[in-house]
Amino acid sequence: MKILVINAGSSSLKYQLIDMDNEQVIAKGLCERIGIEGSKLTHKVNGESYVTEVPMTNHTEAFNAVKEALTSGEGKVVDDLSEISALGHRVVQGGSLFKDSCLVTDEVIEGIRELSPLAPLHNPAHIQGIEAAIDVFGKDVPQVVVFDTSFHSTMPAKAYTFGVPYEYYEKYGVRRYGFHGTSHRYVTGRCLELLGKAENPEGTRIINCHLGNGSSISAVKDGKVIDTSMGLTPLDGFIMGTRSGSLDPSVVTFIMEKEGLSASEMDAILNKKSGMLGLSGVSSDDRDVTAAAREGNERAILTHEILEYQIAKFIGSYYVALGGMDALVFTAGIGENQTVHRSKICRYLECLGVELDEEVNATIHGKEAEISTPESRVRVYVIPTDEEMVIARDTKDIVENMGKEEAPAAAEEEAPAEA
Amino acid sequence: MKILVINAGSSSLKYQLIDMDNEQVIAKGLCERIGIEGSKLTHKVNGESYVTEVPMTNHTEAFNAVKEALTSGEGKVVDDLSEISALGHRVVQGGSLFKDSCLVTDEVIEGIRELSPLAPLHNPAHIQGIEAAIDVFGKDVPQVVVFDTSFHSTMPAKAYTFGVPYEYYEKYGVRRYGFHGTSHRYVTGRCLELLGKAENPEGTRIINCHLGNGSSISAVKDGKVIDTSMGLTPLDGFIMGTRSGSLDPSVVTFIMEKEGLSASEMDAILNKKSGMLGLSGVSSDDRDVTAAAREGNERAILTHEILEYQIAKFIGSYYVALGGMDALVFTAGIGENQTVHRSKICRYLECLGVELDEEVNATIHGKEAEISTPESRVRVYVIPTDEEMVIARDTKDIVENMGKEEAPAAAEEEAPAEA
Repeated sequence: MKILVINAGSSSLKYQLIDMDNEQVIAKGLCERIGIEGSKLTHKVNGESYVTEVPMTNHTEAFNAVKEALTSGEGKVVDDLSEISALGHRVVQGGSLFKDSCLVTDEVIEGIRELSPLAPLHNPAHIQGIEAAIDVFGKDVPQVVVFDTSFHSTMPAKAYTFGVPYEYYEKYGVRRYGFHGTSHRYVTGRCLELLGKAENPEGTRIINCHLGNGSSISAVKDGKVIDTSMGLTPLDGFIMGTRSGSLDPSVVTFIMEKEGLSASEMDAILNKKSGMLGLSGVSSDDRDVTAAAREGNERAILTHEILEYQIAKFIGSYYVALGGMDALVFTAGIGENQTVHRSKICRYLECLGVELDEEVNATIHGKEAEISTPESRVRVYVIPTDEEMVIARDTKDIVENMGKEEAPAAAEEEAPAEA
Repeated sequence: MKILVINAGSSSLKYQLIDMDNEQVIAKGLCERIGIEGSKLTHKVNGESYVTEVPMTNHTEAFNAVKEALTSGEGKVVDDLSEISALGHRVVQGGSLFKDSCLVTDEVIEGIRELSPLAPLHNPAHIQGIEAAIDVFGKDVPQVVVFDTSFHSTMPAKAYTFGVPYEYYEKYGVRRYGFHGTSHRYVTGRCLELLGKAENPEGTRIINCHLGNGSSISAVKDGKVIDTSMGLTPLDGFIMGTRSGSLDPSVVTFIMEKEGLSASEMDAILNKKSGMLGLSGVSSDDRDVTAAAREGNERAILTHEILEYQIAKFIGSYYVALGGMDALVFTAGIGENQTVHRSKICRYLECLGVELDEEVNATIHGKEAEISTPESRVRVYVIPTDEEMVIARDTKDIVENMGKEEAPAAAEEEAPAEA
């Protein structure tokens, strides 16, 4: 079964075609500048890149371009779109409405649309992507949506309720939702396997650090999220590439008053000009900040101190929330590659029983490894994340179950074979 | 030596006359509704209250009323103001300017005025109080200012720098200052005595929970603050009577946009309508929320769950910041009296080696006690706070040193007597 995974932004469309028989990526690519002059498609197969400059005024035209890239020319990987069994779409905000991945229906699209006020940059773009996919692939190809929020839907109210008047939760759904759920779910599953607890996660306590340009940490008990650092939006938590993380809310209103900013102007500053970029004055990219810090740039050094300190404090708070910690996981761009951050964060955590194998840690870049010593009371892992694989697996499961639910007789026939 | 401790608000003036020979409170009182119709003074001596309805159109008139109460009538405690050696004033915001208590000079008043943008409700009122005190007591009576922020001035940059563009720190002084410093200092000093470390605090790690209508937690290493929960203003941290604590900053801008609120209107909601009041819908007073929770009010129960959970998480984060914890201190109204919160918070902390003596804990209301078991890896104390005593002690020290600095010859003469 071949599944096409889609991540649609307002002017972009990322895709990955995965063969679920062996979980191998067949092809992947990116449409950029959709609806903007100079749009292009980059298609990758077997390490080769094929760039096509093709006008894409909307998401349907982008899907047609993807179709062309998949079925013809040098990067051809399928003879016909009919070889693709289903599509899986990433959706950022599932709110309290979607606790699990599900098949796209008119009601589901309506639900994603209703949640747009909570993700105005993302959910409308996802709907454009889904509708364009239906246009190009036809109504009969199953489409599945997988939400960034749904893995966090197990959080208790004490973790997701903000300290503002309760009416804002009731009126507008103001609460912690958490994001990067698909990544946290992937590394949680892999971590449970490494702990030998995949079959029975009861009693396990895992803290996942997804550290990338956007970053979040989650506290996972018995395989279920009980708390996470991102909140109503992906702005919450600790400093990221360009985002501030949690703040004294008076900092927000104070700066707005001093600078004469509107709420949306302030929101843009907090999302795009803050965090590592705003503190270091160098870059939002941790590699650039690292280079500047090595050259002695004091603000770059401070930026890294803040990053590591804030992450360590989050881990401490989740240690208490979980009542302990069996495993600590680093993932995503920074988590998988920045060995010095892992080392400094883990040094803070020695009081919690974390003992990093510094030699092993220093050699691990972007690959799975255990980086704690055998004596460490906490297992520390690097686990490269794979959100597309989670989306593809969910899509496969739902499509397969869909068949069974629609045809109970057939399901019964299959039952003996499974037993 | 008798010292008058002053806490001047914009329409109020609290005072306490302390005999520093035995650190006993001689009299205390409160002027209310200064500049507002119906102003009155409540004066207390030996458990008796004397209420006078007296017009006070400004702080000078309030000081004259205090003078009357102290020197005449039934509540008279001194024959003449000249028996009062010095005044000590509480000042909320000392910014980065005042790292220690100091004698009032014109420059000091100017400094407090310059910091008013960071504490617009407090610092101008403190200046009114100081100037009125000079009017009534005369220029020759020494006046000392003690800042809520100064005990926190030892924080490193990684703890006090917010994740917003660095220019806001440079232009406006946007950073974490911390408050309740006088209280944190008092209980830290007492805790170090209880630990037998008053003379040599090196190596000690204390976490103080000042839990009242306003609340803050501080992490104290070697007797010095390394982090604290309040930030630019006393709004930061965890939920309080009416304050939200830290937030996803997008919650602030989201609600502003939805409700059409200005920055100052939003600030008022976050300071006055949020926290326990906004969540429970019952009251900002924890005793009322407790009563409602006992009757089964679900939002009151959730409010307490959030409070205890957020406090426990802060303690976990500071445990990591400190590299461990030798002692945990509860103080202020809620901390000294609400046994159930102490119990529930400590249950979260069992994974950090905290073991509460539940029986002892249940009996401790507003008095000093050790409430951990002998086996607990962390000493847990209830220590009633006394901010006025810290102000009086600082005032005494500064006034005594002032004499020495001004007259080195006299100081030398005294030296043999001291030896």
